Amino acid sequence: MAAEAVTICECFARDGLQHEEAFIPTETKVAAIDAFVALGFRRVEATSYSHPKYVPQFADADAVLQRVSRRPGTRLKATCPNLNAVRRAIAAQDAGHGPEEISLLVSATDSHSKRNLNRSRGEQWELVEAMAAEGAGRFVMVGTISVALGCPFEKQVPRARVLEDARRMAAAGVRHIAIGDTVGMGTPRSVRALFEDLARAVPDCTLIAHFHDTRGTAIANCVAAYEAGARYFDSAFGGVGGHPTKIQYGEGYTGNVCTEDLVAMFEGMGIDTGLDMSRLLDVARDCETMLGRTLRGMVTRSGLGLLEGAAAHV
Amino acid sequence: MAAEAVTICECFARDGLQHEEAFIPTETKVAAIDAFVALGFRRVEATSYSHPKYVPQFADADAVLQRVSRRPGTRLKATCPNLNAVRRAIAAQDAGHGPEEISLLVSATDSHSKRNLNRSRGEQWELVEAMAAEGAGRFVMVGTISVALGCPFEKQVPRARVLEDARRMAAAGVRHIAIGDTVGMGTPRSVRALFEDLARAVPDCTLIAHFHDTRGTAIANCVAAYEAGARYFDSAFGGVGGHPTKIQYGEGYTGNVCTEDLVAMFEGMGIDTGLDMSRLLDVARDCETMLGRTLRGMVTRSGLGLLEGAAAHV
Repeated sequence: MAAEAVTICECFARDGLQHEEAFIPTETKVAAIDAFVALGFRRVEATSYSHPKYVPQFADADAVLQRVSRRPGTRLKATCPNLNAVRRAIAAQDAGHGPEEISLLVSATDSHSKRNLNRSRGEQWELVEAMAAEGAGRFVMVGTISVALGCPFEKQVPRARVLEDARRMAAAGVRHIAIGDTVGMGTPRSVRALFEDLARAVPDCTLIAHFHDTRGTAIANCVAAYEAGARYFDSAFGGVGGHPTKIQYGEGYTGNVCTEDLVAMFEGMGIDTGLDMSRLLDVARDCETMLGRTLRGMVTRSGLGLLEGAAAHV
Repeated sequence: MAAEAVTICECFARDGLQHEEAFIPTETKVAAIDAFVALGFRRVEATSYSHPKYVPQFADADAVLQRVSRRPGTRLKATCPNLNAVRRAIAAQDAGHGPEEISLLVSATDSHSKRNLNRSRGEQWELVEAMAAEGAGRFVMVGTISVALGCPFEKQVPRARVLEDARRMAAAGVRHIAIGDTVGMGTPRSVRALFEDLARAVPDCTLIAHFHDTRGTAIANCVAAYEAGARYFDSAFGGVGGHPTKIQYGEGYTGNVCTEDLVAMFEGMGIDTGLDMSRLLDVARDCETMLGRTLRGMVTRSGLGLLEGAAAHV
């Protein structure tokens, strides 16, 4: 039984590394991104144009984008936290080494917006609309809605507000909308309900599932999003990323859904990821070498046997 | 939206501990089982009547069952690998401290049967039928079909063979059938297809999802089984259990699906587990203390925020 293919965005180099304490050398980041592109990812989150004072990890954003290999059909994404960041992306593009995608961020709750972005939702929305106007026609713009499935401060997030945010993104000319389960409070049921409603609310937009595995539900939530029609997923090798401290987010570890486990499952279900499966685990192991520690991938240790076992049932 | 409740069998004390290198003291096992019963589990896998020479961890099977607290409505299960084990269960029952459930085991592949049970499938089936005849009318009998979703040696397992095994269990008078994804080779797609077919093949039987998280898919597979109609699940606190060695199973770590994460997700989906949620994480932490190491539960570290966040979407 053929199933519709998925497009996975590898987020290791940005969302994955953002909270690493040590600065990862530029050449390591470049090697990682080159490996992701070679593996077949059509979308790779490469860096962030954050101010180096706030996020020193990405002080080398320009250098990274200048040095990485490009491949036709693969888009590199850079996070843009403010208007100046969009202007840096534009300058890089004019100089021939810009990202193909930029991401703009709002929080679904005011408490999270103030804590994470240092601005109220109202202020952030004004900013996002200005950024979207600036980037229009130049970039694929990804509007990310954080804490869309639960907020560590306000807990419940009304679904109507996420739908309203998605419509506002669409009205601002954004055609890719990422739904962030920032602290892993979604369940297969809430994910399915939200994605079904979103498909009706913004039918012209591509929905992206950006899920964290804080509570062990990320892979199940990806399945639910797929069943509700989502075909774009964000993930990070080794399940790295997020905010490990309780200080910023109220509760603990919040890594991204793990690329190698998600990809193995999709492929085992007969869902094409477009990736070179013969090299998936090599890249997963290289990511562990890069960070100098064992990461959270299960298939990295147990192997891809799932693919063969599941084939009988596809 | 009300959803049908689930019955979870806590497997920490048997499947979970079977491959612990150190002998866990009898009083620790008894305290664990008592805590599980107090938490509200209606089924608890308590021990195994394996020969102490082969599985020294359960040399204290009789003592454990003699000392644990009983609670009306809660059934304790003991694994019975052979006819002598069933006779020990009967003697214990006659003495007033028997298990309410016994489990009988077949492998869906001959290679796994020989490696795990030291008998061909044919020999094992004869044995299981004799055991079922001996236990009939005394115990709730659980027929477990191992490697039902993929075998580390033969890889693909024909679905027709699992259906045939289930019918043969039913014909032997077994009314509870556990589907073992022993090395985590199932995917939501293969699980759903198998459980839908099983519901048609053995409509009078209660199906139990017994999944291992070797490849990160166990929670997603439980959701798929639920959607296909399964309401009984096996799990272990901390995701312990299985065979960590490559020697016996060809590939690595194979712990049970993690109780605390599974329960948190089900409750977050509005699916009642009947458990005391205010004490779930205390018991999870006690299990870590018992084994003297950090186990695999995610909510044990991140908290149950999911319940509050998801409530808006139920």
